[in-house]
Amino acid sequence: MTPQRKQKLISTLERRQPDLQLITDQVHKSRNLAALIRTCDAVGVPYVHSVAPKTGYGYSGTAKGSDRWVKTIHHETCEEAIQQARSKGMKVYAAHFSERAVDYRDVDYAIPCAILMGSEKEGVSQEAADMADQHILIPMMGMVGSLNVSTAAGIIMVEAQNQRLKAGLYNESRLDPQEFKDTIFEWSCP
Amino acid sequence: MTPQRKQKLISTLERRQPDLQLITDQVHKSRNLAALIRTCDAVGVPYVHSVAPKTGYGYSGTAKGSDRWVKTIHHETCEEAIQQARSKGMKVYAAHFSERAVDYRDVDYAIPCAILMGSEKEGVSQEAADMADQHILIPMMGMVGSLNVSTAAGIIMVEAQNQRLKAGLYNESRLDPQEFKDTIFEWSCP
Ligand SMILES: C[S@@+](CC[C@H](N)C(=O)[O-])C[C@H]1O[C@@H](n2cnc3c(N)ncnc32)[C@H](O)[C@@H]1O
Ligand SMILES: C[S@@+](CC[C@H](N)C(=O)[O-])C[C@H]1O[C@@H](n2cnc3c(N)ncnc32)[C@H](O)[C@@H]1O
Repeated sequence: MTPQRKQKLISTLERRQPDLQLITDQVHKSRNLAALIRTCDAVGVPYVHSVAPKTGYGYSGTAKGSDRWVKTIHHETCEEAIQQARSKGMKVYAAHFSERAVDYRDVDYAIPCAILMGSEKEGVSQEAADMADQHILIPMMGMVGSLNVSTAAGIIMVEAQNQRLKAGLYNESRLDPQEFKDTIFEWSCP
Repeated sequence: MTPQRKQKLISTLERRQPDLQLITDQVHKSRNLAALIRTCDAVGVPYVHSVAPKTGYGYSGTAKGSDRWVKTIHHETCEEAIQQARSKGMKVYAAHFSERAVDYRDVDYAIPCAILMGSEKEGVSQEAADMADQHILIPMMGMVGSLNVSTAAGIIMVEAQNQRLKAGLYNESRLDPQEFKDTIFEWSCP
């Protein structure tokens, strides 16, 4: 590995945000998951919690190799994923159409939080929506009722990035030192 | 048609932004185009100018019927699409990685403008990039060099929407009255 490459790995890891995570509730098209994971890498989200769709995953997608840089953690149920995030002190924001939804720019992403995205057909499941701390929405002006899930996730994650840039959260390494070392090792393997 | 449906068509048309358009420079996967068009509908972008890829279009996608609400205008070359936007008084912002690129939030989308997106593999072509008034970029913190094109377009278009909401541009009808009438007629056909 060239010194430049090594430096790129290190400076990327120094910007990783362990307390910003994504949960996907039965998103089943792998091309949507692939686009999601690519955005996670770009924003510095190190983990995607993926709740397996009852019907299995479908289609193929281009993660552009970003699945190498973002870990997917599989869960049987969304409750399990939410409880795990909670136990690490994270708030859960569900991207969900409901009476209690607020504009996605009106919540604080600089605190530890997980963003919960719903499936292509059904959206966020009722049980998961009930468990979420807050519901968030991107305002829509058109005829169609929803955005593509990976587009919506991208819009929300980049808002989180903007808030975290302002808060200085990309300025110093935020990973646990042991995890930092382990990940550099893993990323360095050919 | 129910009166509610008719009212929905009218209020959607009243929020359409004829002076905010999208140009795609040889984006070839129709699932990316489909997601793009769905976001255009949501933001109120009435036209997509699509420059045909030399290799033809590929794959299929889910526009969720939004191609009914957003007109696609086909062009042979990107120069043609850019010149047409210019002749209508629009600035052209190219989403393009270059030395002169600025943060995508630092340009004014409340003025008449067209957002130019590049193809999956090649990005914005050199000739089109040279013609653009400004280059814009979404900051990236990760290993992979670019976002999915429909994700990037969604992030930029929703920023445009936010600026236009603040500027009050969704508060009153902005379409030419004849176009308004023609579109209501077209949209009302079963
Ligand atoms: C295609 S949508 C699901 C639509 C489903 N019919 C519903 O009513 O929830 C898939 C997911 O994308 C996200 N999403 C789509 N549009 C959104 C918007 N405008 N604001 C917030 N999230 C959105 C949500 O997480 C949603 O569950
Ligand atoms: C997959 S990218 C093309 C990558 C290509 N290899 C290049 O270097 O331009 C497709 C298009 O998405 C848009 N895009 C992707 N990431 C972007 C970002 N971070 N900022 C602005 N536009 C982006 C650009 O319009 C780009 O041309």
